[in-house]
Amino acid sequence: MKYAPRDEIETRISKVKKLMEKASLDGAFFHYKIDYYYLAGTMQDSLLFIPLEDEPILFVKREISRARRESPIERIIPFRSMKDISAHIKPMKRVGLQLDVIPYNDVVRFKELLGSAELIDVSPLSKEVRKFKSPFEIGLMERAAEISKKVYEKIPGFLREDMTEIELGGILEAYAKTLGHEGLLRVRSLNYEAYTWHILSGRTGSIVSQSDSPMGGLGLSPAFPVGASMKKIKRNEPILVDFGISYHGYHMDQTRMYAIGSMPDIFVGAYEACREIHYRVLDKVLEGVISKELFEYSKQLADTMGYGDYYLGYGHHKVRFLAHGIGVELAELPYIAATHDYPIEEGAVFAIEPKMVFPKQGSCGIENTVIIEKGNYRILTDTDERIIIV
Amino acid sequence: MKYAPRDEIETRISKVKKLMEKASLDGAFFHYKIDYYYLAGTMQDSLLFIPLEDEPILFVKREISRARRESPIERIIPFRSMKDISAHIKPMKRVGLQLDVIPYNDVVRFKELLGSAELIDVSPLSKEVRKFKSPFEIGLMERAAEISKKVYEKIPGFLREDMTEIELGGILEAYAKTLGHEGLLRVRSLNYEAYTWHILSGRTGSIVSQSDSPMGGLGLSPAFPVGASMKKIKRNEPILVDFGISYHGYHMDQTRMYAIGSMPDIFVGAYEACREIHYRVLDKVLEGVISKELFEYSKQLADTMGYGDYYLGYGHHKVRFLAHGIGVELAELPYIAATHDYPIEEGAVFAIEPKMVFPKQGSCGIENTVIIEKGNYRILTDTDERIIIV
Repeated sequence: MKYAPRDEIETRISKVKKLMEKASLDGAFFHYKIDYYYLAGTMQDSLLFIPLEDEPILFVKREISRARRESPIERIIPFRSMKDISAHIKPMKRVGLQLDVIPYNDVVRFKELLGSAELIDVSPLSKEVRKFKSPFEIGLMERAAEISKKVYEKIPGFLREDMTEIELGGILEAYAKTLGHEGLLRVRSLNYEAYTWHILSGRTGSIVSQSDSPMGGLGLSPAFPVGASMKKIKRNEPILVDFGISYHGYHMDQTRMYAIGSMPDIFVGAYEACREIHYRVLDKVLEGVISKELFEYSKQLADTMGYGDYYLGYGHHKVRFLAHGIGVELAELPYIAATHDYPIEEGAVFAIEPKMVFPKQGSCGIENTVIIEKGNYRILTDTDERIIIV
Repeated sequence: MKYAPRDEIETRISKVKKLMEKASLDGAFFHYKIDYYYLAGTMQDSLLFIPLEDEPILFVKREISRARRESPIERIIPFRSMKDISAHIKPMKRVGLQLDVIPYNDVVRFKELLGSAELIDVSPLSKEVRKFKSPFEIGLMERAAEISKKVYEKIPGFLREDMTEIELGGILEAYAKTLGHEGLLRVRSLNYEAYTWHILSGRTGSIVSQSDSPMGGLGLSPAFPVGASMKKIKRNEPILVDFGISYHGYHMDQTRMYAIGSMPDIFVGAYEACREIHYRVLDKVLEGVISKELFEYSKQLADTMGYGDYYLGYGHHKVRFLAHGIGVELAELPYIAATHDYPIEEGAVFAIEPKMVFPKQGSCGIENTVIIEKGNYRILTDTDERIIIV
């Protein structure tokens, strides 16, 4: 197991503090696991308090001896209830809290603790800090990419006619876990759920579901209506494998296309169009074009190549993003999306995924996780990009 | 795929309405997926509104055609933002909302929609309704139990020396998924995460983690510090397999013990003590003894048999429950727990799990999911209860 080193955690906290100062916050509480993992290095049940003018305190419910081993934070204190915290905080005027994810009842308890202090949503600050990856983080993501590559290389050997989508997915997932894949997808949303992977074959690739994705798949039941299903994989249909990895909490995302026998021409053409969009947009990223213009540019390319109706979904199911930043959350800053207004800068890591969906027929596309560094892009998911025919 | 029939959904909604009336609520919003799945039959991204005096409305973001297929609710309306809802609601004085799980920022948006209406936490109502299972639900849970039984029967064939815990778990999970297991654990808590299964061998069975469980396991990294790990399974150590199933959203929970070669005597004895506690507490359940007295009784039994120090955890890591209700959430009403003050009634389904943890050595225990019906108990997870030696 790799623990975040002291200087890594100190750098992250000092960046958050700078943003807190700018926002005139006297202190901030991080009570959502993704953020305290990022800022303290542990996912033991905790509450991280960062006062602007003092050292951070990690309050830990369970299990404090593990938190002490995992986190370089010096002040680690047990807590059972909010009362245990009050002894350690001074009166504050403006306090940050993750108001986008913390349940209402919990915020009420914080209000009782904080008296008349004004509560400010601090999530945008931690998202901002997480936008750029450090060498330590890139190291973990490279390891995730290695796991991903090994999984993709196994697919041709596992794939056979008449196996179900869920069977293939289960086998790949079991293999990935032996390499350290945690199998968890973390998305900052109350109701979002999915596996870290989609395996969609033929018509299930055109089924939309609850997730903000061009295709959702059929899933296993109304209680889990997304991703791989009991549909049998057949010859001569497109098989889309979007298999994400999580390693030490860092996600890695990629998509490749497979077929048994042959890939129908319509999907061969559409897949090549996706690859062209993928690389031409990456060139524009390096030119410093801003996010929403990159998105528009990709749409124009799809239109020009005759795929406008299918690009990123069909009809009113089209999604409005082409790429999502990726790290300790599956989707974080920066995005290439219709409404985002910034360039993609040095240190950003994102998954770019041009996909085409053909109603009732299926879908295809490519996805790579890419880092911007030294004025260039580097593809972390450097698996063979050709359509694999088994 | 099985959809909830109309009369099932109507019965559930009418039960909620009765409780709403008692709580003087004019209406209630259900925006957390577990509850709208239970009350509407779909997990498409939705918001369920139940007015006291009118028919329910299901507002669906994505994907409405699937929601219409899955849910017997008649009024199903698309929505993009809160504005789309305002046209469909009348002024209300007291409104229910799931304040225990809905993020603060979302509640603020509801407040804008609802003006001066008083907001009441409606989660206790839906929990109360879910406390008793219908024949339709019991049917789904019996199917989950069948899957569970098949998985457990495979364990002796898969288990071998020097395989890692995570490898065994991955193989079992992949197999379970081919039978319809959804692989998701749903717990009403912001930060809770785990697989549906624990596989703990020897000393990892004594490691505690973030979860409220006598043992947590080592997990794969500080980012996922719970459950199966990269530890190799060895001869002559206790192997605890707590493999939960989810089928159409319904959880099933059981634990059995395995060893390669032989089981150390200390765990043989402790396991028999767990079985005795399990059955003697079930007898007391039938006598109508209230929850916290059942819990105390189980502790006395453990003390008398000489296992007081190890029962339900050691030192300050002991948990204060012996059983948890189970259904669309892993842990729901009723509990057998230190602070719960009711008898376990007809129609309740719960997982009872006496376990012993020996510091640095490991843990053992039994767990069954049980239904109370016709004045008796019936064990749904009716797998061989003997220690299995491979």
